[in-house]
Amino acid sequence: MTEKKKTNIILFSGEYDKAMAAYIIANGAAAYDHDVTIFHTFWGLNTLRKDEKLMPKKSFMEKMFGKMMPRGAEKLPLSNMQFGGVGPKLIKSVMKKHNAMPLKDLVSMAQEQDVTLLACTMTMDLLGIKEEELLDNIELGGVAAYIAEGEEGAINLFI
Amino acid sequence: MTEKKKTNIILFSGEYDKAMAAYIIANGAAAYDHDVTIFHTFWGLNTLRKDEKLMPKKSFMEKMFGKMMPRGAEKLPLSNMQFGGVGPKLIKSVMKKHNAMPLKDLVSMAQEQDVTLLACTMTMDLLGIKEEELLDNIELGGVAAYIAEGEEGAINLFI
Amino acid sequence: MTEKKKTNIILFSGEYDKAMAAYIIANGAAAYDHDVTIFHTFWGLNTLRKDEKLMPKKSFMEKMFGKMMPRGAEKLPLSNMQFGGVGPKLIKSVMKKHNAMPLKDLVSMAQEQDVTLLACTMTMDLLGIKEEELLDNIELGGVAAYIAEGEEGAINLFI
Repeated sequence: MTEKKKTNIILFSGEYDKAMAAYIIANGAAAYDHDVTIFHTFWGLNTLRKDEKLMPKKSFMEKMFGKMMPRGAEKLPLSNMQFGGVGPKLIKSVMKKHNAMPLKDLVSMAQEQDVTLLACTMTMDLLGIKEEELLDNIELGGVAAYIAEGEEGAINLFI
Repeated sequence: MTEKKKTNIILFSGEYDKAMAAYIIANGAAAYDHDVTIFHTFWGLNTLRKDEKLMPKKSFMEKMFGKMMPRGAEKLPLSNMQFGGVGPKLIKSVMKKHNAMPLKDLVSMAQEQDVTLLACTMTMDLLGIKEEELLDNIELGGVAAYIAEGEEGAINLFI
Repeated sequence: MTEKKKTNIILFSGEYDKAMAAYIIANGAAAYDHDVTIFHTFWGLNTLRKDEKLMPKKSFMEKMFGKMMPRGAEKLPLSNMQFGGVGPKLIKSVMKKHNAMPLKDLVSMAQEQDVTLLACTMTMDLLGIKEEELLDNIELGGVAAYIAEGEEGAINLFI
């Protein structure tokens, strides 16, 4: 057990705005010297997918899930004001004007600040997402990993 | 106050995947010897409804709410990829193939592990859900019950 | 640092039922003598908007966001059973019959109980929401303000 305060975020949601909130809090907590972990589970795992189209060996269902789910941070929809795909473009153009970081840069920043990015193995198994489809330097773990960190957390959030 | 660590989950959402996440975390925390409570409020209450069609005395509005809301864990929709009702079937068939427990078994497992399942009385009152419509061994309580547990919680989540 | 226990709620969501849950927990915690803060970010900021149509100087995009987003607590949609706008009316009529407080009264009650209502400055900046469009006595802050409170929180929730 470290003396640093811990922040543990479960990122369940697969929406751009919710993932942004998760990463802004994670980066903020890391800047305040917390030991930060983001547990990506269910749709939250899409944030960690690589942009490229990879072709690992998959079953039919796994291929289908892989196709239907957004490939990486910048492809996520909004939880609100999606407007058939126009919403994310509007928000991103506004963010650019205000010099706010896009989600993929928030993810890189988190990695530079040593935020632990963890992918839920149960979700990977169910949805057929392979390790090589994820960004580099992602740890893998299950609910036991979460409980071990969560019970020491000063800030625990489910997003 | 017990010496065990506490995990308190507010289950507000009425979706299959979110309820699954809540129950997987609850069962995981119980396995790590936490004292676990799930507070079912608003749409989260639907997870606790019995499968059967019961006919308690109700007002017109209460009957309508009762009809429109899913009756029990296995009838909940998904928060994502619902596809007009096909999504939950797909996910459940994939879960079966991977020997992952369906939600109703996760609920039974939680009860066997002495996870406290609590139904929010305010929600029951507003939506006209009667105690006999809920699974057996459900405790009833309000926000005061939550604060009392929550302020002692090592892990507190809102799902 | 005060000796009181702290409850910190991030209200990210812009739905009536989720905001209700946030404010019911906040008022409950305040009644149990917690030091309570609600951090309104992203769509959660709409809860704090004044009902009136104000005309601060805005860019085209800011005007558009201002128009499309609900102006104040009583205009928020539901997260479930929205039914093209009928849902909120149904729920509110049921709430009235059961003497449950509407959201705007829960907000006033929170202010009377000295719950700190904080608006996220990044969101205000991005969506072009000006201070004069918000209710009175709202504090402004960013992620640093949240981390400072959150790391001392007995109850931390993301809604």
